[in-house]
Amino acid sequence: MSGYPDDLRAEVDAYLERLSFHDADALAAGLEEAMRYSLLAGGKRIRPVLALATARTLGVPPARMLPLAAALELIHTYSLIHDDLPAMDDDDLRRGRPTCHKAFGENVAILAGDALYAEAFRHVLEHQEGEPAAILAAVRELAAATGINGMVGGQYLDVTDRAPAGAEGLRALHGMKTGRLIAASILCPLLLAGDARPATIEAFRQFASELGVLFQIVDDILDVVGSDEALGKTRGSDARLGKRTYVSEFGLEAARELAAASHRRAREALARAAPAGAPELEQITDFISTRSS
Amino acid sequence: MSGYPDDLRAEVDAYLERLSFHDADALAAGLEEAMRYSLLAGGKRIRPVLALATARTLGVPPARMLPLAAALELIHTYSLIHDDLPAMDDDDLRRGRPTCHKAFGENVAILAGDALYAEAFRHVLEHQEGEPAAILAAVRELAAATGINGMVGGQYLDVTDRAPAGAEGLRALHGMKTGRLIAASILCPLLLAGDARPATIEAFRQFASELGVLFQIVDDILDVVGSDEALGKTRGSDARLGKRTYVSEFGLEAARELAAASHRRAREALARAAPAGAPELEQITDFISTRSS
Repeated sequence: MSGYPDDLRAEVDAYLERLSFHDADALAAGLEEAMRYSLLAGGKRIRPVLALATARTLGVPPARMLPLAAALELIHTYSLIHDDLPAMDDDDLRRGRPTCHKAFGENVAILAGDALYAEAFRHVLEHQEGEPAAILAAVRELAAATGINGMVGGQYLDVTDRAPAGAEGLRALHGMKTGRLIAASILCPLLLAGDARPATIEAFRQFASELGVLFQIVDDILDVVGSDEALGKTRGSDARLGKRTYVSEFGLEAARELAAASHRRAREALARAAPAGAPELEQITDFISTRSS
Repeated sequence: MSGYPDDLRAEVDAYLERLSFHDADALAAGLEEAMRYSLLAGGKRIRPVLALATARTLGVPPARMLPLAAALELIHTYSLIHDDLPAMDDDDLRRGRPTCHKAFGENVAILAGDALYAEAFRHVLEHQEGEPAAILAAVRELAAATGINGMVGGQYLDVTDRAPAGAEGLRALHGMKTGRLIAASILCPLLLAGDARPATIEAFRQFASELGVLFQIVDDILDVVGSDEALGKTRGSDARLGKRTYVSEFGLEAARELAAASHRRAREALARAAPAGAPELEQITDFISTRSS
């Protein structure tokens, strides 16, 4: 397989484009403008596409999980806005455009991130179909994946340089910062579908976890060898910030070998999770491994 | 009635003190330290105490709603940390101590707020007893109260000075920024209890809404006439930031009259919501009206 499940990505993009968050009186319309500026800046929509692809693999029509998929992208966008802030990574460019705080000011950017996170929960709680207990389980996973033991905790380790030394520490950091939300993109649809066997869930969990690692190793490589234009941001920001990456720790060649091994493990876990095949999930896995931006 | 339901406050304080958010491996323990620094800085715990008092009024043992009550205080603490940031109100003192970003740095403070919000959802989703559908309804209210049409949208109107002119605009701003979460502190227990009649819910909704207004008018008055020591922050910060308040718009005497009228309406709505009486909710209403800090 090669390529990317562009049909699912198109469904996600169309759905995100139609989202509206503010009340009829629209007092905070300016805040929504900042939220949409960052939300609709493009990107591969990896997390929501993973969710829809997982739904399809489970025999659930992808459209039925669009509210959950949208929530994942809202959360991801919130994390990018806060990561880019002057007090954090201090980035001026994101996806080829000024970052949210450059375009709207730091105060509005902080609040746009805060609001995107709140609206992610509200959207999935108001619009996601499913048994109440299954929705509860999925939303619980979303919260756990993004709190102190997940995305935000990982970002803390990153900006304060508190991750333990060595490969284990780096893997823990990225498992929290990036891996947990990518994993949630696969686990939440499983929880929503509600009827997967424990062994299947465990195989999906291993696939999801490995996919997060793979994503980060490739990200680190691209920060060194990618072009500014393709990345849509300034290459070399990891080095500028003195961040530990797979490349800074192990060198470029070793990082490439780690990526290849991670890709292999992800495909093996996926084969165990979906013995009958999962074309879109295979495509996404290969895409994450070979992407140039 | 006078006083404050100190038994409920003590239950809240003891519960918050016992909370722990990080995993066993404790990689992000430093982030938890910043979260707890702000969470355990004291305060009247008005929102969680309102939730427990509402539970008692409905005949539900307050202890059963402690997870929800804790989530409300986590969310309130998150909002204070972000409000105090240099890009927002730029406050150095909160409850008599350095604000979170003064004590831990701006990056850690942003993330402590983010993590408190995530952990609020996780806590209530993992620990709150109740029917799944009722828990979903309560968490939906929490998310709606804190998103673009609630707390964060109100903060946006405040920091960008975008609220419409006049008393209506000021009331809309504070209804979103402060009122929605105070209202949620009363509405979420109703949703969790799940068996209130529509007329009761509507009366509680009016009480909750008026209580938010009352809280804000008194807050504005205290920013002018309170003592720094009692407030635990620098008095006059509204004027310093050029913020519109009930006092700046109408003068101190008129603001005091507005507060008295609001207090009367709140007590009337409460009498309709709980005809058999609600001693703790009456106490809190009177306390909010007469507090000095």
